Amino acid sequence: KRARDYGIRIGVLQTGKHNAITDVVGLRVGQTTLVEGNQVRTGITAILPHSGNLFQQKVPAAVYVGNGFGKLAGSTQVQELGNLESPIILTNTLGVGTALNAVVGYTLQQPGNEAVQSVNALVGETNDGFLNDIRGRHVKEEHVLAAIKQAADGPVAEGNVGAGTGTVCFGYKGGIGTASRKLPASLGGYTVGVLVQSNFGGVLQIDGVPVGEELGKFSFSKQVLESADGSCMIVVATDAPVDARNLERIAKRAMMGLAKTGGIASNGSGDYVIAFSTNEGLRIPYSSEAKTQTFTLLRNDEMSPLFMATIEATEEAIINSLFKAETMNGREGNTIEALPIESVIKTLKKHNAIKR
Amino acid sequence: KRARDYGIRIGVLQTGKHNAITDVVGLRVGQTTLVEGNQVRTGITAILPHSGNLFQQKVPAAVYVGNGFGKLAGSTQVQELGNLESPIILTNTLGVGTALNAVVGYTLQQPGNEAVQSVNALVGETNDGFLNDIRGRHVKEEHVLAAIKQAADGPVAEGNVGAGTGTVCFGYKGGIGTASRKLPASLGGYTVGVLVQSNFGGVLQIDGVPVGEELGKFSFSKQVLESADGSCMIVVATDAPVDARNLERIAKRAMMGLAKTGGIASNGSGDYVIAFSTNEGLRIPYSSEAKTQTFTLLRNDEMSPLFMATIEATEEAIINSLFKAETMNGREGNTIEALPIESVIKTLKKHNAIKR
Amino acid sequence: KRARDYGIRIGVLQTGKHNAITDVVGLRVGQTTLVEGNQVRTGITAILPHSGNLFQQKVPAAVYVGNGFGKLAGSTQVQELGNLESPIILTNTLGVGTALNAVVGYTLQQPGNEAVQSVNALVGETNDGFLNDIRGRHVKEEHVLAAIKQAADGPVAEGNVGAGTGTVCFGYKGGIGTASRKLPASLGGYTVGVLVQSNFGGVLQIDGVPVGEELGKFSFSKQVLESADGSCMIVVATDAPVDARNLERIAKRAMMGLAKTGGIASNGSGDYVIAFSTNEGLRIPYSSEAKTQTFTLLRNDEMSPLFMATIEATEEAIINSLFKAETMNGREGNTIEALPIESVIKTLKKHNAIKR
Amino acid sequence: KRARDYGIRIGVLQTGKHNAITDVVGLRVGQTTLVEGNQVRTGITAILPHSGNLFQQKVPAAVYVGNGFGKLAGSTQVQELGNLESPIILTNTLGVGTALNAVVGYTLQQPGNEAVQSVNALVGETNDGFLNDIRGRHVKEEHVLAAIKQAADGPVAEGNVGAGTGTVCFGYKGGIGTASRKLPASLGGYTVGVLVQSNFGGVLQIDGVPVGEELGKFSFSKQVLESADGSCMIVVATDAPVDARNLERIAKRAMMGLAKTGGIASNGSGDYVIAFSTNEGLRIPYSSEAKTQTFTLLRNDEMSPLFMATIEATEEAIINSLFKAETMNGREGNTIEALPIESVIKTLKKHNAIKR
Repeated sequence: KRARDYGIRIGVLQTGKHNAITDVVGLRVGQTTLVEGNQVRTGITAILPHSGNLFQQKVPAAVYVGNGFGKLAGSTQVQELGNLESPIILTNTLGVGTALNAVVGYTLQQPGNEAVQSVNALVGETNDGFLNDIRGRHVKEEHVLAAIKQAADGPVAEGNVGAGTGTVCFGYKGGIGTASRKLPASLGGYTVGVLVQSNFGGVLQIDGVPVGEELGKFSFSKQVLESADGSCMIVVATDAPVDARNLERIAKRAMMGLAKTGGIASNGSGDYVIAFSTNEGLRIPYSSEAKTQTFTLLRNDEMSPLFMATIEATEEAIINSLFKAETMNGREGNTIEALPIESVIKTLKKHNAIKR
Repeated sequence: KRARDYGIRIGVLQTGKHNAITDVVGLRVGQTTLVEGNQVRTGITAILPHSGNLFQQKVPAAVYVGNGFGKLAGSTQVQELGNLESPIILTNTLGVGTALNAVVGYTLQQPGNEAVQSVNALVGETNDGFLNDIRGRHVKEEHVLAAIKQAADGPVAEGNVGAGTGTVCFGYKGGIGTASRKLPASLGGYTVGVLVQSNFGGVLQIDGVPVGEELGKFSFSKQVLESADGSCMIVVATDAPVDARNLERIAKRAMMGLAKTGGIASNGSGDYVIAFSTNEGLRIPYSSEAKTQTFTLLRNDEMSPLFMATIEATEEAIINSLFKAETMNGREGNTIEALPIESVIKTLKKHNAIKR
Repeated sequence: KRARDYGIRIGVLQTGKHNAITDVVGLRVGQTTLVEGNQVRTGITAILPHSGNLFQQKVPAAVYVGNGFGKLAGSTQVQELGNLESPIILTNTLGVGTALNAVVGYTLQQPGNEAVQSVNALVGETNDGFLNDIRGRHVKEEHVLAAIKQAADGPVAEGNVGAGTGTVCFGYKGGIGTASRKLPASLGGYTVGVLVQSNFGGVLQIDGVPVGEELGKFSFSKQVLESADGSCMIVVATDAPVDARNLERIAKRAMMGLAKTGGIASNGSGDYVIAFSTNEGLRIPYSSEAKTQTFTLLRNDEMSPLFMATIEATEEAIINSLFKAETMNGREGNTIEALPIESVIKTLKKHNAIKR
Repeated sequence: KRARDYGIRIGVLQTGKHNAITDVVGLRVGQTTLVEGNQVRTGITAILPHSGNLFQQKVPAAVYVGNGFGKLAGSTQVQELGNLESPIILTNTLGVGTALNAVVGYTLQQPGNEAVQSVNALVGETNDGFLNDIRGRHVKEEHVLAAIKQAADGPVAEGNVGAGTGTVCFGYKGGIGTASRKLPASLGGYTVGVLVQSNFGGVLQIDGVPVGEELGKFSFSKQVLESADGSCMIVVATDAPVDARNLERIAKRAMMGLAKTGGIASNGSGDYVIAFSTNEGLRIPYSSEAKTQTFTLLRNDEMSPLFMATIEATEEAIINSLFKAETMNGREGNTIEALPIESVIKTLKKHNAIKR
């Protein structure tokens, strides 16, 4: 069950239908989970902004670096040109090169791309080396392509799946999490969806409740801070008509959602946010007869509700990743326990944070 | 009384002696409060990193722009050169020019600066125009100079003082707030102090408790979001030996502390963080016979405790600004109520957040 | 006479009618020159993007920091919101506060701005302290307002005028310079205009010819490098329909034009570029009933001609500032010689660089 | 022969011994050139800052994005942490993933790195798809490893080698180029070395002479501007004791050197600069007992000579890449002519630019 199923209500805005990034219409998510023997605990999560040819119909996009101890590839072109031209791939730290190759191959082979000679793949990662034999480099191009191929709309698998298979969050098993917010019609009715690969530390708070402290998981020490290292990849999608500049502003707010879970963006964190708009009016064709393009964009003044939606959905996506992840053992007998749901709910009740 | 006096315990680290930015040894704060008739509700807060000639002995510094709808002057030189050469001045939006002039005059007249022809004043602001006749431009150079002159160490006045005289935060009276954290000796024993000028909105949370929602102050609407506009100036000081690059990283974390109070860095917010180190070994002389300078600096790996301290102290400084501010009426009969402490404490108790 | 009048032909594109920033239709420039007694050699140059109320009808804008040893105020809001809402003011380093105050006053008093409580003035500067008694702070608000009031289209006065009255460039008298480029119709027919306040050093090159070396003005030494300090404020205007993101890219190219004159953006330089579009379809109303706005924008693919135009016009504007400046004596008997035109032309001929 | 062998003298500073990036002591360059059949015209250039274990002994580093239409991987971690922990690899656009994999493999296998689980490879590229069958993806990991293995000090092969095998510059055959500058002892005696992979366009100037215009290679047209696309990877090394902040400033100056060759950083350019210091006192150990590290660093005030050296060496490195490249035919019968040296020299003489 997800956080909300226990009566946890993060924020004040409504969720979308699936409370998932796929509530942004047209967006699809595909995942390959690699669990083999005692050593392999890793995978791939692919996010496809729309169902068409992404290279030929780019989407406005931005990247914000919360803390850059990570290996996100492709960020500078997104920042310069303000658009994204490939599926977003999340995987483990040492799998970035292979994922890049896979996305390049995928794009070159798409119908219509026969003459393409340049592809900017956007590949993020976190380090699952505690549970996964990361040095074994088990991610292969076929796994990446499978994730892209399997991409679907509707509910998104969370927890120990895809790029979240082997990750650790606040000392508990982390993983993939997702959530969404739908603004009321008076504020535009737009949807914001977030997907995270949670792999970081700090002092866990759930909807404001100091769960980390209460469970004694956290006692302040150097060791805990070191375990705060890790990373969080955050993907934010919206159907709102916002350009790259305002998408960057949205991306910055995702780190504020991470902050509310108790994350501190520690020195060793690779905390990156990728934000894009699926709004059909904003698609940027690779080639065009016209020298200009006409866009209808939200005014700056209308951005605040999207900021709030991003903060709420990010916070909830991280919490969902913890609720849905299960205890995992892996490399060298290492084990990471799942969040102890029962104790957590008890703690939340004690703090009057179960709202249903 | 301050938040902590009511048993509120934000975070897991210890405070410094005064739980104030002045716990960073040598740092001084001075404030001029302007309350005149029905119209004038504004002021100046000055932060002096050390007691010497700041121009001749610069300190390493950085600026991070959380959301740039604000008028901070002097930021680009700090970012380029990595240092600060003047007192930091906070005031109202339309007072920045006057404060710049005052700091320039102050610096030119300091003994030893007789030949100085260039001064980079760092002046921040938030907009107090709801309570203050901001268009009347009541801040004068003498007020700025008085704040600098009065600068002192020890406890810092909070609430409706200095640059916080007329500010509004989460719909309640905001103002100046401060807090500090002292790391345990095992983590270096460094102090981080924060001072804020709180003037922003969102959905108030106090130590994680959804006070805004509970008090019914907040009900989601366009109007509330608009009132989320405003700004927050945040000043972070530390005695830890960190250079400009790592100070920028510290500055970014302050926005994570703001996030935990329920702020959303709305479109109209001017959210800026200024961070500097008072560490004596890092002073940068204006002129020097030597072409090189030797610095002993914390390694990147040691930064995380300072990040956590920054997040905690920022969160608490904002909450302190609310606890210490009092109901204020001003321009055109406008009134902003103080945080209703009794109800707040009741709510916190209901959520088991009073820890003493 | 200007550089082009001597047969110098910088670049391959055509100039606009006046070869001035005012070739961008609707843009106006106003200047106040302060030359009093032996000490005062300074002034103000104001650039108004259009003739309407700039606060009510903002223009898309960007700022690029070439080297940040300077005091440009107002840059962060331009970068965040992507627009400019006031006249741009250039003056001397210690006059920024006064110019800020003047622009705030100007804006508050404009018809239609009666309720405005926040103004982002964009004020740049260079340091004219060698010829000017800069510590005397002779720039007053009335001088700034006079520059705004006098703003006009048509030819722009260059050399020892306005903010260029007391500046020094490559060891010769610098000042205000301007130039423009008009793209051929096949490339859109857009105009790019540049205005500079030249006050920097390096090894002067004119249309590629090593004039600095040839005139013996330059012989490599520490002293020369120190004199390389100074600054260059660069304002780039275009009527092309480009948004803030692409305006920032244009702004970056202006530094490439500066490079071609032999500038090195030395440590002590405050080299800033402000770029904006006057395109009427891109005006951003301060308030609007609509939540969205429709823009027709140039595609990324069409930007390169504008980049080239910016580089060429910046290079020529700087050279024009040298050609039009005259020998000036000032503070403490200091004298800066004008560029020795006759020798320069001789040198250019020797290098076959006089193209007419 | 290189540019200087023909009497061309770019700038006013002296070169190092080899006029190559390898004049920075300890730095090594290795290249793999792939020329097979009619289709394969590509390769790899590897730059190793020092001969030790780079992961264990990182070097201070920075990245500046001149124009981000490129796929440089690894930049964000360098910017965040201020250091470089791997060889720098340059290759073709679609080879980045493979090069990443190769560097990861190389690092994991180095003695001493047995426990390493995270590697930040810095891999840049330009697009050689006109001459090379880039879609065939002929770069293999073994080629990358071979380049690293062959790395040597001393003279560096230029022109159609390594990552420059198939590149095009100003419509002529481009490639790898290098140059260096050695400051006089009075300015510290430091060396700055630059290596470029030239693959961009514009209007070629050689030491200021408008060679592009004179050779009629350039006539202004849309087509020429499109051919201005391409990219330039620039690597700047120095033995001067400068930290990441000042290395970023150095990196920005390299684009000023590119500007002086007539480059315009067109929309389609991926122009990136990587700068690092090999200074032994600045090595950053991966792990350390100590929490602090002591650095002796150049003061900001001493940076200008290094800026000038960077500009000069970049300009000359690009020109060298053109002088050393030879006519190449490749994919689909495409041919790119070498710079017509004889005509060029004649033109330079006509402009009095042959100084010997």
